[in-house]
Amino acid sequence: MKLGVCYYPEQWDSARWRDDARRMAAMGLKLVRIAEFAWARMEPREGEFEWAWLDEAVGTLAEAGLEVVLGTPTAAPPRWLTERYPEVLAVDAQGRPRGAGSRRHVCFSSDKYVSASLTIVEAMARRYGQHPAVVGWQTDNEYGCHDTVQSYSPRALARFRNWLEVRYGDIATLNERWGNVFWSMSCDGFEQIGLPVGLPAQANPIHALDWRRFASDEVLRFNRLQADVLRALSPGRTVLHNFMGFFGEFDHHAMGRDLDMATWDSYPLGHTDSTAFIPPAERLRWARSGHPDIAAFHHDLYRNVGRGRFGVMEQQAGPVNWAPWNPVPQPGQVRAWTLEAFAHGAEFVSYFRWRQLPYAQEQMHSGLHDSDDRVAAGGAEAARVAIELRELPDEATRPAPVALVLDYTSHWMLETQRHGADASYFGEAFALYGAARRLGLDVDIVGPDAPLDGRALVLLPALLAADAALAQRLEQSTAQVIIGARSGSKTADFRIADGLPPGPLAPLAGLRVRSVESLRPGMDVALEGGGLQGRASAWREQVEAEAGTHVLARFEDGTPAILRRGRVRYLAATLEPTLLDAVVEGAAKDAGLSTARLPEGLRLRRRGRVQFAFHSGPGRVAVPAPAGATWLLGERELGPAGVAAWLAD
Amino acid sequence: MKLGVCYYPEQWDSARWRDDARRMAAMGLKLVRIAEFAWARMEPREGEFEWAWLDEAVGTLAEAGLEVVLGTPTAAPPRWLTERYPEVLAVDAQGRPRGAGSRRHVCFSSDKYVSASLTIVEAMARRYGQHPAVVGWQTDNEYGCHDTVQSYSPRALARFRNWLEVRYGDIATLNERWGNVFWSMSCDGFEQIGLPVGLPAQANPIHALDWRRFASDEVLRFNRLQADVLRALSPGRTVLHNFMGFFGEFDHHAMGRDLDMATWDSYPLGHTDSTAFIPPAERLRWARSGHPDIAAFHHDLYRNVGRGRFGVMEQQAGPVNWAPWNPVPQPGQVRAWTLEAFAHGAEFVSYFRWRQLPYAQEQMHSGLHDSDDRVAAGGAEAARVAIELRELPDEATRPAPVALVLDYTSHWMLETQRHGADASYFGEAFALYGAARRLGLDVDIVGPDAPLDGRALVLLPALLAADAALAQRLEQSTAQVIIGARSGSKTADFRIADGLPPGPLAPLAGLRVRSVESLRPGMDVALEGGGLQGRASAWREQVEAEAGTHVLARFEDGTPAILRRGRVRYLAATLEPTLLDAVVEGAAKDAGLSTARLPEGLRLRRRGRVQFAFHSGPGRVAVPAPAGATWLLGERELGPAGVAAWLAD
Amino acid sequence: MKLGVCYYPEQWDSARWRDDARRMAAMGLKLVRIAEFAWARMEPREGEFEWAWLDEAVGTLAEAGLEVVLGTPTAAPPRWLTERYPEVLAVDAQGRPRGAGSRRHVCFSSDKYVSASLTIVEAMARRYGQHPAVVGWQTDNEYGCHDTVQSYSPRALARFRNWLEVRYGDIATLNERWGNVFWSMSCDGFEQIGLPVGLPAQANPIHALDWRRFASDEVLRFNRLQADVLRALSPGRTVLHNFMGFFGEFDHHAMGRDLDMATWDSYPLGHTDSTAFIPPAERLRWARSGHPDIAAFHHDLYRNVGRGRFGVMEQQAGPVNWAPWNPVPQPGQVRAWTLEAFAHGAEFVSYFRWRQLPYAQEQMHSGLHDSDDRVAAGGAEAARVAIELRELPDEATRPAPVALVLDYTSHWMLETQRHGADASYFGEAFALYGAARRLGLDVDIVGPDAPLDGRALVLLPALLAADAALAQRLEQSTAQVIIGARSGSKTADFRIADGLPPGPLAPLAGLRVRSVESLRPGMDVALEGGGLQGRASAWREQVEAEAGTHVLARFEDGTPAILRRGRVRYLAATLEPTLLDAVVEGAAKDAGLSTARLPEGLRLRRRGRVQFAFHSGPGRVAVPAPAGATWLLGERELGPAGVAAWLAD
Repeated sequence: MKLGVCYYPEQWDSARWRDDARRMAAMGLKLVRIAEFAWARMEPREGEFEWAWLDEAVGTLAEAGLEVVLGTPTAAPPRWLTERYPEVLAVDAQGRPRGAGSRRHVCFSSDKYVSASLTIVEAMARRYGQHPAVVGWQTDNEYGCHDTVQSYSPRALARFRNWLEVRYGDIATLNERWGNVFWSMSCDGFEQIGLPVGLPAQANPIHALDWRRFASDEVLRFNRLQADVLRALSPGRTVLHNFMGFFGEFDHHAMGRDLDMATWDSYPLGHTDSTAFIPPAERLRWARSGHPDIAAFHHDLYRNVGRGRFGVMEQQAGPVNWAPWNPVPQPGQVRAWTLEAFAHGAEFVSYFRWRQLPYAQEQMHSGLHDSDDRVAAGGAEAARVAIELRELPDEATRPAPVALVLDYTSHWMLETQRHGADASYFGEAFALYGAARRLGLDVDIVGPDAPLDGRALVLLPALLAADAALAQRLEQSTAQVIIGARSGSKTADFRIADGLPPGPLAPLAGLRVRSVESLRPGMDVALEGGGLQGRASAWREQVEAEAGTHVLARFEDGTPAILRRGRVRYLAATLEPTLLDAVVEGAAKDAGLSTARLPEGLRLRRRGRVQFAFHSGPGRVAVPAPAGATWLLGERELGPAGVAAWLAD
Repeated sequence: MKLGVCYYPEQWDSARWRDDARRMAAMGLKLVRIAEFAWARMEPREGEFEWAWLDEAVGTLAEAGLEVVLGTPTAAPPRWLTERYPEVLAVDAQGRPRGAGSRRHVCFSSDKYVSASLTIVEAMARRYGQHPAVVGWQTDNEYGCHDTVQSYSPRALARFRNWLEVRYGDIATLNERWGNVFWSMSCDGFEQIGLPVGLPAQANPIHALDWRRFASDEVLRFNRLQADVLRALSPGRTVLHNFMGFFGEFDHHAMGRDLDMATWDSYPLGHTDSTAFIPPAERLRWARSGHPDIAAFHHDLYRNVGRGRFGVMEQQAGPVNWAPWNPVPQPGQVRAWTLEAFAHGAEFVSYFRWRQLPYAQEQMHSGLHDSDDRVAAGGAEAARVAIELRELPDEATRPAPVALVLDYTSHWMLETQRHGADASYFGEAFALYGAARRLGLDVDIVGPDAPLDGRALVLLPALLAADAALAQRLEQSTAQVIIGARSGSKTADFRIADGLPPGPLAPLAGLRVRSVESLRPGMDVALEGGGLQGRASAWREQVEAEAGTHVLARFEDGTPAILRRGRVRYLAATLEPTLLDAVVEGAAKDAGLSTARLPEGLRLRRRGRVQFAFHSGPGRVAVPAPAGATWLLGERELGPAGVAAWLAD
Repeated sequence: MKLGVCYYPEQWDSARWRDDARRMAAMGLKLVRIAEFAWARMEPREGEFEWAWLDEAVGTLAEAGLEVVLGTPTAAPPRWLTERYPEVLAVDAQGRPRGAGSRRHVCFSSDKYVSASLTIVEAMARRYGQHPAVVGWQTDNEYGCHDTVQSYSPRALARFRNWLEVRYGDIATLNERWGNVFWSMSCDGFEQIGLPVGLPAQANPIHALDWRRFASDEVLRFNRLQADVLRALSPGRTVLHNFMGFFGEFDHHAMGRDLDMATWDSYPLGHTDSTAFIPPAERLRWARSGHPDIAAFHHDLYRNVGRGRFGVMEQQAGPVNWAPWNPVPQPGQVRAWTLEAFAHGAEFVSYFRWRQLPYAQEQMHSGLHDSDDRVAAGGAEAARVAIELRELPDEATRPAPVALVLDYTSHWMLETQRHGADASYFGEAFALYGAARRLGLDVDIVGPDAPLDGRALVLLPALLAADAALAQRLEQSTAQVIIGARSGSKTADFRIADGLPPGPLAPLAGLRVRSVESLRPGMDVALEGGGLQGRASAWREQVEAEAGTHVLARFEDGTPAILRRGRVRYLAATLEPTLLDAVVEGAAKDAGLSTARLPEGLRLRRRGRVQFAFHSGPGRVAVPAPAGATWLLGERELGPAGVAAWLAD
């Protein structure tokens, strides 16, 4: 696995570049991402390009033996674009154009923004597409950051109406499928369809959902247009994007199909502190390590978004500046995150950033060096892990025995219709993922269309939009299946499933959901049976079991809580973690997988023949390595931020 | 009492109507409300009407022996209205026109909206006004839902200025009565008066109050115009409206005078979960039953708004979809709510809705049947109670011994000038109402102009706007009176009462309020005396008792807390429930009323000779029935959702 | 010290003025502030003035022997101004013009607002500038109240661009100093610079900071223009302004240089209840007394803003109406506040207001009399203290041994870049101030440019913008110095200090801050050493001590927490109060100051030879007076609101 770094030559005196490059190489770094915010330096006036500085920067890096990933700079358009063409500005949900002066203030539906973007992308690709040091291209930067996927501009509305016309054909069909007879919402033509915001009551859920589908498609289109230009003009280079954590505003699986590789920006402390579904006590517990499943969750997601190829484009190397609170990572944690990415199959880990910038918006964001250019704590750990990585065999990642299905449509549905104020799609997915991880299982996080052949265990947390095709693949597989509550509850038109939920999954699960309820915090419901005992909260369903379906556990009022039909388990509620652990453990056992109840903070992950163990802390724990294992890294007992690795086969 | 149901033929294939109607009748339902959201189906293009479907629907219901209440569809205007006449759109407090695509996006001050509304109302009335199956008309639907009473449109502002000119005559008078000398606010003409929102500091309280009075008058006008059309074209039918719970944005007493009957939409679980003044612990306790006073409070209010005639137009029959959390009612609760409405004198209870709709905004709102058309839990309870009701004598409701005065002007005043951040007018009224109910007393909730003859006990919670006419009626009555804090504190021009609060009530109460204070939660003040002991919080007054006024209890600093002058008690603070119970108990005793300290969750209510008891739970409690009572329903010990009835005389 | 009162003759029938004036004098009041909201009465139509009423009012007060401070009425423009010139309206951060109908709805950058203001100021000054009873002028009223310093109007933006051009000279320099190379923010000209609001991500911190500097300068300009007119036309009178508590939207030190005297509006209960950085438990504890340091903090600040001359223009005399909750002060507290102002060197205390007004926005704001004109509790205390003051020698205030540096630029920097969600500049300053006060020390709160000669102890809480000039003055002084965390961390261009923080203070402190972190509540860190033991929270720094710097205490991970180099101490974290007490105690001891650990709620303050003690409560405490002290006021043991005074030398 290569190490890399994010570098911004335009922000530093060119006299420093050569020394920076030399020190990068000396630190063991190989990959350098540059240029993704330098549009104004490359095209200072419309149609006028200045390449000399970038030629020199790329050349300097190349001379030091470094490989370059170039970022297209479309996330930060230059001033002349917004001044000359104000129609490129995105519009917020209150109808106000977003101002220039930061980044991402533009609308994906703007024709001028798209054409100006393709012009700069093409110019870059023509200039550097064949450069021997250039090994890859990053499209844009963190699509959707700062809540920018949805723009409520007139142009977006016009394109939405066209999108609807393509999807539904004629307005009568739309009225029928949307159910517009309700509240006299029927339209006489597509031009009567408005934005799903600013209404006195909520919009029709399918109206809101189609708007999100459309917005996602606009991002996909923008990315595909860039990728097409890059592929044509820079053959053989890897085209990738850097996704974000716990971000679901567009369909990542779909975008992955337009890329050669997926990368993501890993800020475990920032995500732990700012993710709403992580309870405050957990945020405190993992404040200096990051929640022990946060990085892994995204590694396991983006490896599959990238169809096997993934990397970390921005790796937190010290405190960030954007979470509500921003602590320093515990000693060793930057090294541990790096090795964890390796264990999950990353091709590279690129630290953000080479040197802390003393000015502008990110001046409080740390890097491998402080603003005074002294090596920071994270820099020292990067140097150490660069050496350690040389001793670790770069083995191929094997498919995990467990597949968890993550579906962006289901996420949008749940967000559109929470029912309970604390409902969270990613929260449900993360909970079930965590249960598998606490049992020492490796997981692939896949899309709803993924083949399931060879999986021993399939997890479907809150898969509201589960369809007949998925049901058929599940039917044909031999895997143990755990279906989470709400799954199969909605059709593609955001209607309640025919014949009641779980709709297409009903034959598999052998049950019908007669009614559902959301529960205010404190309204926990006890459940028991089949060796399971614990509490449900937040969401519960009243389920009717069909003949042949076994009720494993029942709620205190006697209704079914956990059901099983053959190799399929169904959870009729949001379960507390210990219950999830027990259910997943039971299913894993039936699947022939061996599991272990890991100590708090310890997690396992295997890459090829190499078995890793990571400990977030606190305290010291023993790793579950066999007695005669060939030891590659670390020791049998790990303290906070400890990492061990041994040969498993 | 009849049972009924809300039904939307336009939402279902007409092939299903006949069977639906047959099953309604078989379930014991008699009344069906239809059409209140079907404007687009009745008038698909401006001036073009389609009646065939509705003719068939009404006919089908009539053939099954059902009676029909038609709703005028003005809460959900069709797309052509807003597209062709964008000036009909309401404007929110930020100055943004509200979008079409849900409902209630229109402005009561819009001339075109009013005229288009009267056109469809008249067309319906001409078509169905004489139909033998049509027994009533509902005007609009839930006026003000989704915060839509106030529209900040240019037309509303123009009409507000006219309204002010009518009220004050000339600008000098307005300046004088508003006190516009303060902060140089004096106006040179009515055209200088603006909206009371978007100012750096708060608006003049009388400015804000007059704006609310105006907005209320606009709703009243709109309703009256509809009622006039209906009365002219559909003689002999009941004209009614379906009000909402804990909603005070317009004057319900005044609207009641324009109707033949008041109905309300009873969703006890939704109200319990979403009402701000109900403490979180109470929300949890009553999450599956609804707070034991919520339905009763509104029954007792709307019975009087309807001048004796009231019904429940929409009765929660399962989980709703609109509260922060939406649990399933406990078993038996739908039946209990139905019988409770009967006990309070309802003419009918109409369930919402016949069948859960699988699409659009309310797809997660339950009904008597689930979306797959199987009888839901609430449907089974409705069928059961339909049979039980046959055995209960439909006796006339007698005036209650206790009258609680609820005044919308006082509500607006308190909202405009909370003084303490947690102040709530409905909260104060609900607290005093609850005290009477916990003592087993029946209550009428009346307007400030209501005659008080024959009342044994009159309760005036936070009656800020109490005027001389009310003071005179109190003087002339023989009732025991409990005056809550803040009462009589403001004139009609929103000034501090002359001679200090309680203003016109001062001679009755025998005291003056020298100063007032609001108390941050935790600043409780102990009080004691006259056998009373407990704590006040939130609001306290420094009161000066006149000679002849007896101080029953004093605060810990020695100042008067509860005072009595003859048959009038005054509460100088917001008291905790146990203190309120004791004060009301004392006054009731002095009034010759017999009371009982009921167990938690148990409530009583009498209809004619029949005495009812309702238990919300938890646990089992004995009802206070005399030994030899003639038993009509239930048993002497009630569990959760239990109901008992016996003959009292 | 004089007592005074705020009076509004225009709000009362002129028939009452004479009696009011007589009673003011009888109560011992000497000073009356009038007219600051009476623009509409003085200039009812543009250019037409009506002086008769004000002539009479001033004359009536003068006849009663009262002195008059006239307020210029520019905080409350008349209706004709905003109706005829809508461009005078301020614009909020959402781009909406603020409405007329309250006050402060105007934009300091509006040419018409400025010219109309100068017209009325000049007219007043010509009319009353030489009147013998007129002793002073108050410019405007509470600049910035209701969040009105910043206006986002087109005119403000235009003037901001000019301001930038003046500051930076050319756009290349601005781009360089702002670091606009980041995110392609470089501008081609000043006209491309926009507002720092409404952007998807945060604005460049220097963009936000310069906007605040500009907004502050606009207020300073407006005030200076008024002061110039007043000085020219009313020679010999005191020109002052009434500042607010915990308000830092413009540079008060700078404005002080344009005034003869500073006054402030002291509402200790309102400030205690509404100040975000005061923890809820403290708000409750001091709900009826005000936090024991709140009034003192502002006295000590505004005495220095006024370069030795200060007063209290509005003194809370009973409950206010504008905090979330508004309790009545404990008995004696109004008197105690008055004496406390005296102890801190006030020239006058003027109560707000003579009589509670029964109408308009402030009708629930108490005064010396209630709206029925009876003396309120606060009025009785004012009368008492007027007599007591006659016995107290009006000694000159001496410079305090302790100087605390309060810097508005640092405040703006910290607000722009909190890093931790609960960070508060005033909170940091108030904490360190409180430590000195709990030790019985007198404090001057001074600006960053103040000379430090003669100070024994200098406190620098969170002085982010500390510059080389200050470092030099500190170097040249002999004072003990306590430097709070974050000090010296930013340059004037809002960059990280060269060579790392504390930048210019580094040579003094003998250390470098290698990294910083903000800590979620609950992430406390223990520290110990040098006799100190306790906990840090919220903010922590990783500090590298230079040779010769002594580490007094270390965090639990061994890194330096409190450091000392000669007479300079550095705090590498936000410390809990007991730790602050110990650090300040140590430094004070080294400075030769005597300190005492005062009981909770007790505070000391000396004016000349007179030593005061104030007790906020609860309970009774002994004051630390020497055995043979000459007693002037109170007793050796004080209860709540108790005050004692004795001769100290």
